Amino acid sequence: MRGASDRASAPSHPFRPRLGESASHASASIATRPSVRAARDSHRAREFRAGASASGNSANAFVYDASAASKPPLDIPHWHSRALVNDGRVFTETFPVRFDECGPNKRSTMRTVASMIQECACNHAQGIWGRAQSMPADMNKANLAWVCTRLHIDVHQYPLWGDQVEVKTWFEAQGKIAARRDWEMTDVTDGTPNKVIARATSSWIAFNLEKRKLARIPQTVIDEFQVQALPGAPVMGFDYEIEKLPDVRGMPGVTIPESHSVRRTDLDMNNHVNNVVYTEWLLESVPDAFWEKYDLKEIILEFRNECHDGDNVDAICCRECGPSGVLNCEEKPGEAQLVHMLLKRGFGMSPQEAEVVRARSVWREKK
Amino acid sequence: MRGASDRASAPSHPFRPRLGESASHASASIATRPSVRAARDSHRAREFRAGASASGNSANAFVYDASAASKPPLDIPHWHSRALVNDGRVFTETFPVRFDECGPNKRSTMRTVASMIQECACNHAQGIWGRAQSMPADMNKANLAWVCTRLHIDVHQYPLWGDQVEVKTWFEAQGKIAARRDWEMTDVTDGTPNKVIARATSSWIAFNLEKRKLARIPQTVIDEFQVQALPGAPVMGFDYEIEKLPDVRGMPGVTIPESHSVRRTDLDMNNHVNNVVYTEWLLESVPDAFWEKYDLKEIILEFRNECHDGDNVDAICCRECGPSGVLNCEEKPGEAQLVHMLLKRGFGMSPQEAEVVRARSVWREKK
Repeated sequence: MRGASDRASAPSHPFRPRLGESASHASASIATRPSVRAARDSHRAREFRAGASASGNSANAFVYDASAASKPPLDIPHWHSRALVNDGRVFTETFPVRFDECGPNKRSTMRTVASMIQECACNHAQGIWGRAQSMPADMNKANLAWVCTRLHIDVHQYPLWGDQVEVKTWFEAQGKIAARRDWEMTDVTDGTPNKVIARATSSWIAFNLEKRKLARIPQTVIDEFQVQALPGAPVMGFDYEIEKLPDVRGMPGVTIPESHSVRRTDLDMNNHVNNVVYTEWLLESVPDAFWEKYDLKEIILEFRNECHDGDNVDAICCRECGPSGVLNCEEKPGEAQLVHMLLKRGFGMSPQEAEVVRARSVWREKK
Repeated sequence: MRGASDRASAPSHPFRPRLGESASHASASIATRPSVRAARDSHRAREFRAGASASGNSANAFVYDASAASKPPLDIPHWHSRALVNDGRVFTETFPVRFDECGPNKRSTMRTVASMIQECACNHAQGIWGRAQSMPADMNKANLAWVCTRLHIDVHQYPLWGDQVEVKTWFEAQGKIAARRDWEMTDVTDGTPNKVIARATSSWIAFNLEKRKLARIPQTVIDEFQVQALPGAPVMGFDYEIEKLPDVRGMPGVTIPESHSVRRTDLDMNNHVNNVVYTEWLLESVPDAFWEKYDLKEIILEFRNECHDGDNVDAICCRECGPSGVLNCEEKPGEAQLVHMLLKRGFGMSPQEAEVVRARSVWREKK
C-alpha cells in the first residue's frame, strides 16, 4: 500500500525495505494514480473546478471544500449503471475500472475485459428472464441450459484505473441449435470522445441437462428471440468466419507446461472454472520475452471440457505462423499469433477428455 | 456459461458432458441466479412491478416491455457511486457485487471484501489528494510514502451476487509516525434494511523512499489531518488492541506448504503483490475439512516483506488454540482460530527475510 506516484512507475523493484525495520511494506491501498494520467487529469481537474465555481455545488460534482480552491475536487463518476436500449434488444452497463483490475503497465488486462463482458451478459440474462431464472422459461422447463462453446475478444485499447467503460451486449439465434452473443465496449470517461475500445462475440448451444447432450432450442424461445434479440447486427461484421483451432500437442516449439491446480477461488457460482480463469491460465504460459515485445490484442477460446475443484491443468502454447511457427499460415505485418491448449492431467484420460480449451492469441508489436 | 438455476445449486459436478459431443461446457455467462435468492427476488420483483404499474416508467426502474406484464422487469441499481460525507471526513462508495466475486456457496468471498475496501481507499486518496498524487503533497515532497503494516477484516455476512454494498472509509493520525484507516461495509440493496455486514481497520506508517526507512509524518500533514480525518471514531471500538501474531515455523500441526509462484496477474500497478492476493494465497492452505466445518469470519494480516514477479511463496497454517492447537490460548465457543504464514523460498535468505505475511483467521462453526 504505497502512495508515491512518480516512483511507482520507475524501476520495477523500487521499494525493497531493509531488514530489521519494525514494519515494512506490501499491498496497495492509499494508492497511486499512474503518472501517465497526470496531464489529462490535471486538465480535467481544471475543467471541473471551473464548472464548480460557476454553479456552486453541481449535482455531478462534489467539491471537498468549496471555499478552499486549492483542494482537489472529488470527481463523482455519474455512470448510468444498467439499461435496456434499442427497443429492449441491447443491454448496456457501465463499469468504473478498479485499481485491482490494472497491472504494472497501469492498464487493465484481458482478464478485466473478460470479466466485464461476463458480468454484463449475466445481468442482461437476469434483467430479461428474471432473477431466479436467467434463461427463457421454456428452456428451463425443458431442462435445457445454455453452454458457451466459443469466445472471441478483440481489444483495441485497455482502459486505465478510474476510466469508465460502457459495455453493450445483444444476441440472436443462429439456426435451431445455436445462438450468438456479442459485446461492444466503449470508453465513456468524462471528456473522452466515445470510442469503441473492444469487441467480442460468442457461440452458444442448448444442452439437455438430463440427457447430457446437445438439444434443439424450443421454437417458443426462437420466437421470443424475435422480440428480444438484435438480429442482423454481428459486432465482428458479416464476413466473420469461425475457424477451427489446431491441436498443438507434440508440435515443435511448444512451451514447457505451466501447471495450474484448480483452487477454491477459481470456482464460480455454478462450481465451474469459467472463461475468465482460463484466460488467465493460458496467458501465464506465454514466455516473458513475448510479453516484452508484444501487446495482447485478441484472444479466441474454444471450450472443450469442464474443470472442477481438484483438477490439474497444464497450459501450453507455441508460435502459430511465420518462420518460427508450427503451422503454415501468415501473420499480418507487426503481428504475431500463438496457439494454446489447456490440458487436464490424469491417468487413463483420452486425448479428447484431456482437452479443456483450445485458444489462439493475436499480438501486436509494441511501438 | 450455464443457465439452469435449480440444478446449479445441486450436486457439485452437475454438468459433466459426455465425450464426443461436438461441444461442451465451461464458463459462466448467460448465467444463473442462485436459488437461495429466489424467494426474496420474487418478492422484490412483485414490489417492483407494482411500483412500475402505478407510475408508468419510474426513473429508477426500466421495464422491458411496459405493456407485457408477464415480462420480468429490469432492475436498475441506483447507487450513488462516490461521495464525501461527514464534513468531507468520510468517503463512501457503493459497489454492486459481481458474478465473478461469488463462489460455489453463492456468496462473495473474503477476497471480494478485501478488494472492495482497497478500491474504496484508493479512490478516497485520489478524491482528496488529487488524481496524480493520491497522498498529501508535503509527504510527496519529502519523498515519503504510506505503507500498510497491518490489516484486520471482520465479516459478519458476505453479500450475494447483485447485492449493493456501501463501503465507508476514514482515517486518523496515531501519534507522529502512524495512521489508522477504517472501513465499514453496509448492505444497501433495495428493500434491505441497512445493516453493517463488515468492518475493517488498518495501520500505516510513513516510509522514506530515499533513505529506505521509517519516517515521521510531516507536521503539516498531521495538521491537514485535523480537517480531513475523522478523529475519535475507531470502527473496532475504543478498547481494540493490536496483538502480535506468532511465528509458526516448526510448530506441530503446521500444514504441508501450499506453494504459489508470483504470476504476472498477481502484480498491481505498483509492481507489488498486494493484500488481496495474499489473502487468497493464505486461505488456499486451509484444509478442505476446515472449510466444510467452518465459515471464515475474520482475517488479520501483518505485512513483513514484499513479493515481486518470479518470487516463490509457501503458505502454511495451523490451529492456534484449543486442544489441537499449538499455542496456549482460548477460542470462543463455536469459533476456531488458525495462524498462518506466507514465506518466500530462496537460498541464503534469513528467517526474517523469508517472512512475507503473518496472519490469523477466525472461523465460526456452520449451523
